[in-house]
Amino acid sequence: MNLDRCCIHTITTKPWTLAESVEHYAAAGVKGISVWQNAVEGMTHAQAGDLIRRNGLDVVSYVRGGFYPHTSAAERAKAIDHNKKLIEEAAALGAPLIVLVCGASPDQPLEVSRQQIREGIEATLPLAEQMGVKLAIEPLHPMYAADRSAINSLAQANEMAEAIGSAQVGIAVDVYHVWWEPNLEAEIKRCGTHGNLLAYHVCDWKVNTVDMLNDRGLMGEGCIDVKKISSWVDQTGFDGYVEVEIFSNIHWATDQHEFLGKIVQAFEERV
Amino acid sequence: MNLDRCCIHTITTKPWTLAESVEHYAAAGVKGISVWQNAVEGMTHAQAGDLIRRNGLDVVSYVRGGFYPHTSAAERAKAIDHNKKLIEEAAALGAPLIVLVCGASPDQPLEVSRQQIREGIEATLPLAEQMGVKLAIEPLHPMYAADRSAINSLAQANEMAEAIGSAQVGIAVDVYHVWWEPNLEAEIKRCGTHGNLLAYHVCDWKVNTVDMLNDRGLMGEGCIDVKKISSWVDQTGFDGYVEVEIFSNIHWATDQHEFLGKIVQAFEERV
Repeated sequence: MNLDRCCIHTITTKPWTLAESVEHYAAAGVKGISVWQNAVEGMTHAQAGDLIRRNGLDVVSYVRGGFYPHTSAAERAKAIDHNKKLIEEAAALGAPLIVLVCGASPDQPLEVSRQQIREGIEATLPLAEQMGVKLAIEPLHPMYAADRSAINSLAQANEMAEAIGSAQVGIAVDVYHVWWEPNLEAEIKRCGTHGNLLAYHVCDWKVNTVDMLNDRGLMGEGCIDVKKISSWVDQTGFDGYVEVEIFSNIHWATDQHEFLGKIVQAFEERV
Repeated sequence: MNLDRCCIHTITTKPWTLAESVEHYAAAGVKGISVWQNAVEGMTHAQAGDLIRRNGLDVVSYVRGGFYPHTSAAERAKAIDHNKKLIEEAAALGAPLIVLVCGASPDQPLEVSRQQIREGIEATLPLAEQMGVKLAIEPLHPMYAADRSAINSLAQANEMAEAIGSAQVGIAVDVYHVWWEPNLEAEIKRCGTHGNLLAYHVCDWKVNTVDMLNDRGLMGEGCIDVKKISSWVDQTGFDGYVEVEIFSNIHWATDQHEFLGKIVQAFEERV
């Protein structure tokens, strides 16, 4: 895919500071950046946004909100307050969208967690509308159902977004989480048809994954047909940034300049 | 659940030989055993079956066939031959059923692997009928979609079994693989209604799983509501053995007598 649509998540080059990421992404021809909370350190969110725009990059998303489910009502209220704070930070940063890792609690049924996710999102909607920040439900792979997300397929995310029915709420589709879904093409189409396809993330699934969190592959290193999924996403009319989000102990341990070079090449050849 | 319905997979107490497993399971009041290929060593399958029955245990299943998908036709033919051999071994052992880990190839689309799975199963059906051995498709968790199974939900397994439409083919439901499914209760009911619920496996999903293959939990150690799923299975009219299948580096490293004691207790209290 053309580099003009390339966005990179700061977590992908975790060893770099935000300033380093911004400088090197821009120099490599990357046009967008998605900012993780930990990247904004030692500066305000407004300053971080200025730094990014001054270097000619667009802020694509702020990562990440969510984690609504808890068995205790007090904890759920705290999670909602935290999400409100994140919405204000996103607005200050100039990020049009927050990615939601919705959460799950191993101490209650998944359907209860799903109800709490919906309530949590709805509780923050007025502020999100006021601030002009969209909320993107990210379905997470079923291997994260115990404590990270009770929304484990694009089919479920579509149901949830359609049930909420707000222009402020949509979905972030990440190939890592949904590549195995049997009806993926149809669910992507459905997502687009309902105006819910807000973000698209790429990486790869390594055949011999050794770490459930931090062993994602660069596009081409695994078994996902990213090009095919990209074509389905584009067919919905989506023409936004394509976001490279790779958590990898292996890649983080390498020279990040070389890694960035590989990302750019993989983006052009494999996305 | 009453111990009369308890079956244990030999792999669960991997450090023990088949003879040791048989002796200790029987002494603990366990009534059934599912035999993994590696457990039959230094004896014929007929001898293994005799050993088991002489100790008053039932052979519940032979584990495991499948792995049909390959990009090369020669490899697929080899897989079918291997599965035929397994059917003959199961018959010699006196096992009424083979569990199928259906397979997947990272080098081709999942839908192609699924077609090859169907063709593979169908190619072995005449022999399975002749030998009186049933074949149970085991849907595997989506985290195994790269190279272990392209059938990743009970919904998909139901579709496959219904499409094949043979009394010889059904499904093995394992809580580890399907606990996250949003429509699990309905899919279990559907499985029973079509006469496809042939086997039911239990263990637990640990919240902080450290190994994708060998870190399963004993019932009660994780977040699966096994009792609830068991009630759904029983509501279909299923009254067969409930099979304890736990791959765990942690439990294998402990005293297997103590572990067996914990299994029996967990079976009575948590299943």
